[in-house]
Amino acid sequence: MNASVGLLYDLFVIFLAAKIAAEVFERLHQPPVIGELLAGVLIGPYALGLIGQPDAGLIALFGGNVAAAEEAIEAIYHLIAELGVIVLLFFVGLETRVADMLRVGGRAALVAVLGVVAPFVLGFALVGPLLGHPQLEAIFVGAALVATSVGITARVLRDLGVIASVESRIILGAAVIDDILAMIILAIVAGLATTGSVSALQIGLIAGQAVLFTGFVVLVGSGAVRRFGLHLDALRMDNAPFAVALLAMLGLAALAASIGLAAIIGAFLAGMVFAEANERYELERQALPIYQFLVPFFFVITGSQVNWRLFLDGGILGLALAITLVALLTKLGGCGLGMLGYRWRSVAIVGVGMAPRGEVGLIVASLGLSLGAIPSEVFGVVVIMSVLTTLVVPPVLRLLYARDPARPHAAEDRTSPAGLLPEL
Amino acid sequence: MNASVGLLYDLFVIFLAAKIAAEVFERLHQPPVIGELLAGVLIGPYALGLIGQPDAGLIALFGGNVAAAEEAIEAIYHLIAELGVIVLLFFVGLETRVADMLRVGGRAALVAVLGVVAPFVLGFALVGPLLGHPQLEAIFVGAALVATSVGITARVLRDLGVIASVESRIILGAAVIDDILAMIILAIVAGLATTGSVSALQIGLIAGQAVLFTGFVVLVGSGAVRRFGLHLDALRMDNAPFAVALLAMLGLAALAASIGLAAIIGAFLAGMVFAEANERYELERQALPIYQFLVPFFFVITGSQVNWRLFLDGGILGLALAITLVALLTKLGGCGLGMLGYRWRSVAIVGVGMAPRGEVGLIVASLGLSLGAIPSEVFGVVVIMSVLTTLVVPPVLRLLYARDPARPHAAEDRTSPAGLLPEL
Repeated sequence: MNASVGLLYDLFVIFLAAKIAAEVFERLHQPPVIGELLAGVLIGPYALGLIGQPDAGLIALFGGNVAAAEEAIEAIYHLIAELGVIVLLFFVGLETRVADMLRVGGRAALVAVLGVVAPFVLGFALVGPLLGHPQLEAIFVGAALVATSVGITARVLRDLGVIASVESRIILGAAVIDDILAMIILAIVAGLATTGSVSALQIGLIAGQAVLFTGFVVLVGSGAVRRFGLHLDALRMDNAPFAVALLAMLGLAALAASIGLAAIIGAFLAGMVFAEANERYELERQALPIYQFLVPFFFVITGSQVNWRLFLDGGILGLALAITLVALLTKLGGCGLGMLGYRWRSVAIVGVGMAPRGEVGLIVASLGLSLGAIPSEVFGVVVIMSVLTTLVVPPVLRLLYARDPARPHAAEDRTSPAGLLPEL
Repeated sequence: MNASVGLLYDLFVIFLAAKIAAEVFERLHQPPVIGELLAGVLIGPYALGLIGQPDAGLIALFGGNVAAAEEAIEAIYHLIAELGVIVLLFFVGLETRVADMLRVGGRAALVAVLGVVAPFVLGFALVGPLLGHPQLEAIFVGAALVATSVGITARVLRDLGVIASVESRIILGAAVIDDILAMIILAIVAGLATTGSVSALQIGLIAGQAVLFTGFVVLVGSGAVRRFGLHLDALRMDNAPFAVALLAMLGLAALAASIGLAAIIGAFLAGMVFAEANERYELERQALPIYQFLVPFFFVITGSQVNWRLFLDGGILGLALAITLVALLTKLGGCGLGMLGYRWRSVAIVGVGMAPRGEVGLIVASLGLSLGAIPSEVFGVVVIMSVLTTLVVPPVLRLLYARDPARPHAAEDRTSPAGLLPEL
């Protein structure tokens, strides 16, 4: 009767799976986010196939073209997942003060730079011989190892109630800078692969745009809100502060994505801007239900895209494990080096928190695939690497914080208004 | 860099247009929802075309097939709009007590039945000669005039703060019954058009399923929650009552849609079930931000689908105005007859509140179109009818309530927790 019956059913199944998994993992004293990811793997098209099948209505919309209907579902899932992670990072931004970030800014920059250089250089150097393949392939794999995908770390740090800790702030700051650097590396690699050369001017323009965007939002946006407040009393629309905050979230996410940054970076910056407003706690309180509704979709849908059959191929799996090890050790080493001077636990938390690779690595790899620079097995290797570096984070971070003797800030966090609300 | 940049930008533009329109219409002392609909017309593909254009990333996902990418955007918009109106009716359900509904149940049934019979019979009788066309065509047009689309009325009643009034409860109850009746008529018409006959058994099965679903949810679901409470303390997941309520919303919406009812009927019933829980006000408080985020998408996207060029064709427009008049007068007359005994203002409020036709009318018409039972101009006529019957509702309802001497319940409503929150 209606083209979206199947899609509504999918949304229900995804949310149900997320909640069952969260419940089971809470009872097992494990991070619920891992439950959500695994639930996604289970119900996804590569396992039970409970979601992602276009129904007759949707297929009819595409004039009987099943493949197009499946692509449409993929695009829909992608958008809903993206909305979920945008809300997640916006919320984390709301909990983050610019001043606190700037206080760790130099350290975050160091962590980001070393955390990008180490995987790229060592990845390139080690992976080349490992693959026994041409230079361009090693460059692509090195580039795919670069970018941290901070979504899962942000979620785990929130779940643990330590989002305001020094380590969390360094991770978030480093993630913003890391994303800018990753974008520059992507542009360089794309130039090398397509034209064989790199235009310094073009790279400079791309980098300048990203730095300007970030700097403008953080310094001018937050500064203006801090100094002058929101002053939305003149607006007659209902609940203007919340509406304007949501507008900024969507707008800065779209803007960040359109200049080549991750959409979540824009959403995080939007959150930071509104964290300077007096209405901050009220905004957090109102954003929380949207978080609880949309964020699980990101993790379940992400899980559903994992093709676990890749793990069955011994050759691919061995190579993938080796490259995952390179990915983990280089990020741990690079970011850890940037953290020198802190106690070992903080070094480890930041190193592990920066470890997950996500979309950007897959974008690099699929670009390489489409340009013929890497073969499809290596693409599979990158997929496995991004899955494993993501899965390793929640339990290890949890362990690092659980045994932390110096963790009063966890309790402190709970005194923030969000902490008084139904627990996240 | 990412297939959803254009879609994120669209979401931003839609939300921005909604908020600007709401602000302007609030200042003009007009219902913001009309502003949202008109903003949708303005930015939609038939006017400025600010949204709905697939970007290169999305087109690439469909292997360069622009038409498929456009269909995908349509499917995505449809789902997001549907989520918005599902949240709207779920919220309205949370504000509706089963006991209050049952108290007006007989009256609501009378309003629904007469409000369905009058447009169908008179539509069939009057439209036949008007079109000078075969019987089957008149049957289809009559059927397209039947179903009330209660989304806009629910929104206006909430905006006016009168959702708990007797008239509102009669409208909501009648809308549920109306939807069941419309589904039965759709099944009959579809049978007539495809096989030339109607299987009483099949119609009985369809009707029985719908009645069972509604009765079970309302009586058993609500009764169980009222008597035993939610008792979700044993669940370890975060904020279990809200999670379970959202699950019920998605699940009953999908279930309603899968048995041929409108998804919003399922969502409304889910809300009514949770309105019996002790956690009711807390659930309302948490559902409100999701309402504020998602509901505007429904109205702007609905507006964006209006092809105003249809209004430029004098022949179609004249016929459309005549049929719109039939649609309005028959619903007003039928529902008004069902309200006999109430003061004239209540009669008018229910008659006008039941007037908007939406998706079901378009489904009937497009079924007729695809079966060759109606020509494309008549489809255009039905589209115009559904737009006009929708646009007429907010200003008239507002007028009817504004001059109502007996409107203390409006102030009363504001004492509910939702009323204490930032105004909707």
